[in-house]
Amino acid sequence: MTGTPTTNEPAPDPAPASANAAGPRERLSRRRLFGMAGAGAAVAGVSAAVGVAVSRSESVTTVTDAAAEVVPFHGEHQAGIVTPAQDRMHFVAFDVTTRRRDDLVALLKAWTAAAERMTTGLEAKENGAVGGSPQAPPADTGEALDLPASALTLTIGLGASLFDDRFGLADARPPKLIDIPAFPGDDLDPRRGGGDICVQACANDPQVAVHAIRNLARIGFGKVAVRWSQLGFGRTSSTTRAQTTPRNLFGFKDGTRNLKAEDVEALREHVWVQPGDGPDWLVGGTYLVARRIRMHIEIWDRTSLVEQEVIVGRAKGTGAPLGQVDEFDEVDLRVGGAGGEPLIGENAHIRLASPEALGGVRLLRRGYNFTDGSDGLGHLDAGLFFVAFNRDTAKQFVPMQQALSSKDVMMEYIEHTGSGLYAVPPGVRPGGHWADTLIR
Amino acid sequence: MTGTPTTNEPAPDPAPASANAAGPRERLSRRRLFGMAGAGAAVAGVSAAVGVAVSRSESVTTVTDAAAEVVPFHGEHQAGIVTPAQDRMHFVAFDVTTRRRDDLVALLKAWTAAAERMTTGLEAKENGAVGGSPQAPPADTGEALDLPASALTLTIGLGASLFDDRFGLADARPPKLIDIPAFPGDDLDPRRGGGDICVQACANDPQVAVHAIRNLARIGFGKVAVRWSQLGFGRTSSTTRAQTTPRNLFGFKDGTRNLKAEDVEALREHVWVQPGDGPDWLVGGTYLVARRIRMHIEIWDRTSLVEQEVIVGRAKGTGAPLGQVDEFDEVDLRVGGAGGEPLIGENAHIRLASPEALGGVRLLRRGYNFTDGSDGLGHLDAGLFFVAFNRDTAKQFVPMQQALSSKDVMMEYIEHTGSGLYAVPPGVRPGGHWADTLIR
Repeated sequence: MTGTPTTNEPAPDPAPASANAAGPRERLSRRRLFGMAGAGAAVAGVSAAVGVAVSRSESVTTVTDAAAEVVPFHGEHQAGIVTPAQDRMHFVAFDVTTRRRDDLVALLKAWTAAAERMTTGLEAKENGAVGGSPQAPPADTGEALDLPASALTLTIGLGASLFDDRFGLADARPPKLIDIPAFPGDDLDPRRGGGDICVQACANDPQVAVHAIRNLARIGFGKVAVRWSQLGFGRTSSTTRAQTTPRNLFGFKDGTRNLKAEDVEALREHVWVQPGDGPDWLVGGTYLVARRIRMHIEIWDRTSLVEQEVIVGRAKGTGAPLGQVDEFDEVDLRVGGAGGEPLIGENAHIRLASPEALGGVRLLRRGYNFTDGSDGLGHLDAGLFFVAFNRDTAKQFVPMQQALSSKDVMMEYIEHTGSGLYAVPPGVRPGGHWADTLIR
Repeated sequence: MTGTPTTNEPAPDPAPASANAAGPRERLSRRRLFGMAGAGAAVAGVSAAVGVAVSRSESVTTVTDAAAEVVPFHGEHQAGIVTPAQDRMHFVAFDVTTRRRDDLVALLKAWTAAAERMTTGLEAKENGAVGGSPQAPPADTGEALDLPASALTLTIGLGASLFDDRFGLADARPPKLIDIPAFPGDDLDPRRGGGDICVQACANDPQVAVHAIRNLARIGFGKVAVRWSQLGFGRTSSTTRAQTTPRNLFGFKDGTRNLKAEDVEALREHVWVQPGDGPDWLVGGTYLVARRIRMHIEIWDRTSLVEQEVIVGRAKGTGAPLGQVDEFDEVDLRVGGAGGEPLIGENAHIRLASPEALGGVRLLRRGYNFTDGSDGLGHLDAGLFFVAFNRDTAKQFVPMQQALSSKDVMMEYIEHTGSGLYAVPPGVRPGGHWADTLIR
């Protein structure tokens, strides 16, 4: 067993729910199934390679093995939401092409079984890439053979379009699964939005994340088709993960004031759907907002340092809020500069996005940087794949984005090119399957 | 100093050429310039995090720090060719938009200065993202602040189009910088090919590779425009690098028989341009062939295991050549199976691509896997970004690709969608600049 299980839940969650249900045989890694070639060296590498993960909100230091780490699939909530952000993301949205409800249920069951296996470092199906009949297509595509679990999490979400008349789910559509309104500055590409079902794969190895999405697509052949997908990077390599808050492609630290996995009370208030919020099947779930934000980095790069810092409201180097010294110093929106004007201006990004300016609204953000080749106009097609989780999008993401899109000077440098909102079902209990509180 | 310098050259190269010319101050990492916030934890992380890199050709084990590693920029040959493959690649091709030769020389000098800095973990320019005048645009874009060198290499190549009448280089065009002929099955996208200048950035952290390309593009503003770019992944995370040969997205180990950095004689014969080969300015250089190979993974995944293995000529699990036991067992093209037919068939990929079938031809390959969203037809747009270095493309890559494209059954599952050939100048001596044997 190469994995070091960690919980994906805040501490107070009940232990049985977050325990991993896989048996000992199931916990064998893909690598172990691959016999002895190089195994000595590989095991030596894993045991020698110890990354240091530091909770950014606290001074607690946890020593984990970033490659071999296993994040439990089962729990009260799905993994991949409050799980500390892994290095890479592969996000995909599917259109369901079958019109049979039984097919959809069978697919959700098959996907869950595969997700349970892959998140422990196993192949998608038993006998996998090379263990089945040589005359049959392999049950796993094979490119993650030899690779450990790499903290893989798989998180499913359901788009509003799934709740049409195809599967008898119209009455179960959560009222809060809204159509996100248009914002000033949107330049949405319909080929980069929506979808009946999304899956967010996060892992410390891109090949593990891509393998997981690809095998889910393969299992879904004839029932789903890939609508859009996005690859992202953002965390630094495992050995440097301890350092600091990751930076976005504007060069600024991004996520300093994010909700913390440890803050169970705030997660309950801002992230997890509570009884009475909407349909019962979604209690313990949340809503995933995805926005592909193209950054016009070439224009930003021609802006002066002071202008950049005024736009953001933080110092570029340290990440400290203007008027403070350290990144994690409390943001004080009242601190005045010369002439009495507030140092953090009326339209500074961190003021507009602050709970103070938004009546206490907060989001759990989980964005990744991206670079998708070039734009055909001499520039890199780069930006931020913004992913956030909230409990009530109309009251949280929407007002925040309305404030930003109408006042944030940063809007001159960015463009929203993709958008999606998905209801994220609660976690899967052992023996259950994804979205079984909705459909089974 | 967080870097552990390693040579990018085969052992017999002269030490002075591969020594890093940067002085002690220059060797400070971006992180060190950023003061004390979190520095203790970061340093602890780095020193505790030790990956084990195993030379695949030999049983020699080298212990390196994958994140902090510095690959020397200077040397007889450019780094990033025989350098052990880092985890990630960002490849870019530029069109030169200035028509002034002086501008081009100034750009090559400025790029070289930035590359010397960034490959040691420094910002692109002195004073960088936050150290200059607040009223001026920062001299570095900042997203790699806090990140170590991550074994960054930057390798430049020159396309045939640079040798037109704009810069007086027509007479210097290497005769071997040919136009790659069309092959059966090509489906080349003109937006993914060619370019006056290419730069290959490889690093163990994608953000470091992307930062480097972006800052070169920024320095080149008004003189060059991005023509196309490609991101790739392929190596596993640093902690598991020791394990095995990486797998491509067909699930097979890829690169088992590749040329080895240690095999100086073979590199001289197959990779490095020798005196008498062509223009003197290119001696010590090589040619970079780039091919973006889309893999129709969904079709491949419906092929039986035995068919996949017959197409490749290797066992999927172990990577052993058919008829052998271990990945690194000698390939024997004569071993017969039942009925006397060779186990490695006449059209097996490894036979067609073998030196035995090609009159001794070999390439130094350096490919990376990619996933670029979806294709709009329900599939992932995924494949292999094939990069190879050879000494005489018409005699090495072209006949190999002709054999593969006309006979390889694998062609039913792939499509070449991008192509480029670039003359790669020799390495830079301290005080010199990229391509200064050609233009200065």
